[in-house]
Amino acid sequence: MPSYSAPLRDMQFVLHELLEVDKELAQLPPHAELDADTINQVLEEGGKFAAEVLFPLNQAGDREGCRFDASDSSVKAPAGFRDAYRQYVDAGWPSLACDPGFGGQGLPMVLNNSFYEMLNSANQAWTMYPGLSHGAYECLHAHGTPEQQALYLPKLVSGEWTGTMCLTEAHCGTDLGLLKTKAVPQPDGSVRLTGSKIFISAGEHDLAANIVHLVLARLPDAPPGTKGISLFLVPKFLPDASGNPGERNRIFCGAIEHKMGIHGNATCQINLDDATGWLIGEPNRGLNAMFVMMNAARLGVGMQSLGLTEVAYQNAVAYAKERSQGRSLTGTKAPAQAADPILVHPDVRRMLLTARAFAEGGRAFTSHVALMIDRELNHPDEAVRQEAADEVALLTPIVKAFLTDNAWIACSEALQVYGGHGYIAEWGMEQYLRDSRINMIYEGTNTIQSLDLLGRKVLMDNGAKLRKFGEKVRTFVEQHGTDEKMAEFITPLADIGDKMSKLSMEIGMKAFMNRDEVGAAAVPYLRVAGHLVFSWLFARMAKLAIDNEAGGDPFYRAKLATARFYFARLLPETAMLIRQARSGAGNLMSMEEALF
Amino acid sequence: MPSYSAPLRDMQFVLHELLEVDKELAQLPPHAELDADTINQVLEEGGKFAAEVLFPLNQAGDREGCRFDASDSSVKAPAGFRDAYRQYVDAGWPSLACDPGFGGQGLPMVLNNSFYEMLNSANQAWTMYPGLSHGAYECLHAHGTPEQQALYLPKLVSGEWTGTMCLTEAHCGTDLGLLKTKAVPQPDGSVRLTGSKIFISAGEHDLAANIVHLVLARLPDAPPGTKGISLFLVPKFLPDASGNPGERNRIFCGAIEHKMGIHGNATCQINLDDATGWLIGEPNRGLNAMFVMMNAARLGVGMQSLGLTEVAYQNAVAYAKERSQGRSLTGTKAPAQAADPILVHPDVRRMLLTARAFAEGGRAFTSHVALMIDRELNHPDEAVRQEAADEVALLTPIVKAFLTDNAWIACSEALQVYGGHGYIAEWGMEQYLRDSRINMIYEGTNTIQSLDLLGRKVLMDNGAKLRKFGEKVRTFVEQHGTDEKMAEFITPLADIGDKMSKLSMEIGMKAFMNRDEVGAAAVPYLRVAGHLVFSWLFARMAKLAIDNEAGGDPFYRAKLATARFYFARLLPETAMLIRQARSGAGNLMSMEEALF
Repeated sequence: MPSYSAPLRDMQFVLHELLEVDKELAQLPPHAELDADTINQVLEEGGKFAAEVLFPLNQAGDREGCRFDASDSSVKAPAGFRDAYRQYVDAGWPSLACDPGFGGQGLPMVLNNSFYEMLNSANQAWTMYPGLSHGAYECLHAHGTPEQQALYLPKLVSGEWTGTMCLTEAHCGTDLGLLKTKAVPQPDGSVRLTGSKIFISAGEHDLAANIVHLVLARLPDAPPGTKGISLFLVPKFLPDASGNPGERNRIFCGAIEHKMGIHGNATCQINLDDATGWLIGEPNRGLNAMFVMMNAARLGVGMQSLGLTEVAYQNAVAYAKERSQGRSLTGTKAPAQAADPILVHPDVRRMLLTARAFAEGGRAFTSHVALMIDRELNHPDEAVRQEAADEVALLTPIVKAFLTDNAWIACSEALQVYGGHGYIAEWGMEQYLRDSRINMIYEGTNTIQSLDLLGRKVLMDNGAKLRKFGEKVRTFVEQHGTDEKMAEFITPLADIGDKMSKLSMEIGMKAFMNRDEVGAAAVPYLRVAGHLVFSWLFARMAKLAIDNEAGGDPFYRAKLATARFYFARLLPETAMLIRQARSGAGNLMSMEEALF
Repeated sequence: MPSYSAPLRDMQFVLHELLEVDKELAQLPPHAELDADTINQVLEEGGKFAAEVLFPLNQAGDREGCRFDASDSSVKAPAGFRDAYRQYVDAGWPSLACDPGFGGQGLPMVLNNSFYEMLNSANQAWTMYPGLSHGAYECLHAHGTPEQQALYLPKLVSGEWTGTMCLTEAHCGTDLGLLKTKAVPQPDGSVRLTGSKIFISAGEHDLAANIVHLVLARLPDAPPGTKGISLFLVPKFLPDASGNPGERNRIFCGAIEHKMGIHGNATCQINLDDATGWLIGEPNRGLNAMFVMMNAARLGVGMQSLGLTEVAYQNAVAYAKERSQGRSLTGTKAPAQAADPILVHPDVRRMLLTARAFAEGGRAFTSHVALMIDRELNHPDEAVRQEAADEVALLTPIVKAFLTDNAWIACSEALQVYGGHGYIAEWGMEQYLRDSRINMIYEGTNTIQSLDLLGRKVLMDNGAKLRKFGEKVRTFVEQHGTDEKMAEFITPLADIGDKMSKLSMEIGMKAFMNRDEVGAAAVPYLRVAGHLVFSWLFARMAKLAIDNEAGGDPFYRAKLATARFYFARLLPETAMLIRQARSGAGNLMSMEEALF
């Protein structure tokens, strides 16, 4: 019943007009030759694949779910998932942004990013299978030995094999220092692993010939806590002499979870029973190696939520144009019909524009971050690379938490546009909402992202990274501060920039006295930071819209209206957030534990 | 896996200390003899029934859902539902607040209200079966002929039969003026009805011997729109000469919906194929008659969400005390364990206290409204009755929309406390969230509630009802304005009272120029009104807590801490809402339809 078409025009606007990726990529040797036509062609083909192959499987996949067979600990993904994955591999999509040295196409992150938005709009549950593989690829690419890379990377790049991240155990998710899975070194250089993992997305399935598990575990005599965790490569089938799947390894799916959403992706309990594995990177430095994968995964989760925001918006708009109910408060708009389309009602528009602004802002935001990652990876000047890395580090937790909260709001508003039909499975809206809920939790809960932002990224370097980003904002404010047409955007942008600085300093000072002040402020603080980024991007997009409006392309009128909506209706959330963040730890900590 | 115990202490605090129901009820002849012990006993027994009989069926009911059998158009509720209903009837619970003239116990609404909170905490889907019956009872009690009342009311009061509201059709939900179901008068005074209804909760099931459908339809030559709608009584089985279920009427369930939540309640498509029915009340005045039922139902939906808020809170607290993960930011709190309970983390407390404050505020709010209904129904002085009726009319849409939005937030926060486990069905939290989502939609979407509040209840009488309520707030402010201990509560209460008045006037003036200003402001306006009510109630509760704190009962310390949390962390939402409400219609209406 729902539908999806890739938002190509807005993607092109973000890449070519807002970010001017051609100028940036021209400075990055591996991408210097990439032109706009190629980018647009990839987007178009990717959009077709998402809309035509993946999207039709989304609702059925939710209904059917994955099936676990205890007799051989196998998992079957929903009907059609396996075939779609074969098409995905045959078309070469897994290799898009991978290293040409291992069979990749070497395209930039910023393009892969837009591609993943479309996959996630079409089918988040399906997209997690290749998404996790890509994370495993990045981790092995950064930390694997040359032998490991030669053996595993080509298979991950081609998509012939998939990957997982095995972190969580029943008693530890956020606090990985508590994990118990053991790894015992063997004379041949391998290890034998024993333990039990939970919540392993794409942990077992029938899509690929082999699954490369990246497993966190403890070596004997490892120090307690997070400094005693190592990372291991544990394939489902041990590669034989020719590198093909050989002997079945002793790592098995024990059960799959029944979840609120993402039913099409198998969330597995994974038991390691003397399974064979190999160390990745250095002993006891597993969390560092895993962080490569986790940072990519955090951006990936942001993309999941952006995808859901977009598809929920598209469908709610279609419904609001078709469904007629009641009359406009200002008089009949469709006299030939018994009622006006509900799009005439201001509050229906409020709900739609909320989702729209979150989608457009999120698209600009994630594309910006992805381009910074390309710069971080490939700019010839190390100082530029470092600066980009700092900005990526600052913005990654914001992408993850802000966009996933926003999707939760947007999908709920989009569902509400449908009235009672929004609650009925066949219309598809309630699935988006259910699917989106996990994004606020996994890859580090949004509270953890907020603590990472405020405690580590902002306060640990006394605000240096934040000030650096603030300079970009100030530069834009100064450039356009005297442009009358831009005043409606520049004034609130400058204001939120100032408030963000003051808020950061105030919390920093309080935190000297009481570390709980960080935890008490972190969540609203992160959303203020998200609005700072959105304000900056919407002001820049508004500038482009104003400059181009006269050409008559209605795209720019719509962009300007969305930017105005954002500043009028969404940015005011900061008035609440700042009060909450400043209210301090006392109102949280004074309740005695027993009184809860 | 989840658990529930009735919050008797807080209920008793609200009824006996905050509202002093004994004083109020003493003035209402039918309730003048009711004492606190009886009230407490009913609450205790009701809580036992909810916790011991209904709660254990909630998760299984969600998993199993209802089963429709097309061969005989029958519906089976989940296992145990029928037996629980029999126990409910045998214990006399359906008759609690019903007219003794028809077999009822004649207890006040304010007590029935608390009872329904507990039922909804335990099992919203189950509670909808008797809940809708009670609505049908109220409608027939107000508008039925003496013959209809004699025949049907005793069966509804005893619970032997259940009831439904058949309003929605596929093409109309909010805009009932479009409905098409036809009723053709017969020589014997009955009518024959033909048409098709959707979204009929509890529309077919195996819990009771008969179902009394109240159906909206059009008589021949009825005027178009809402002024041509009549209400009809259409029993599933036509009563025979002795009033027992006789011939099967031609009203059949055609299918049940697959929904996001409330799986245990059958949401039916109901087909009327020349079904026999009887007019209730006057021809073409069906909406008026139905409004009796709908107002009760709106409060009932608020109670559903209050129930979910409470049970979600209870479970999240239990989890936060048991689950150990990480260390307190201010140093180890549980040195004997590998990690501290997550209750030490400020943001976990923020999530818990959000749910707690919404539960406690909602309990006080709905109990206040229920007591006003008792006054409206039974006070000997007509002027007092009218004043109470006005306040109930003003507050009803606020209860419905504010509490259902709050539950959505609270259940989501409570789920988040569980991390990944919150997303897994077995822990029960995701069901609360899914169940709660419908409450923002049915019985008039929250947008409709907001338009009802701002457009009808506030602007149509130039703010008279609102000013009357504002006087209560001002009286309290003046009484305690010089009490230093109360300053932290009185200052923000006075402030939000002033802002509410100014905001109402401002929107009222704008609405003269452009009616869309009402629609553009209504949703944030309603939430500001909700916070005004909550501020007033939390300030009153804080006063009681301060007065009683010295006695050493920790209940009052907890109440004070919750009130402080409310003012510090939740009331600041109004800073956002007022900006949104004032931002006007332009930012919503300027986008051309085609550009969406």
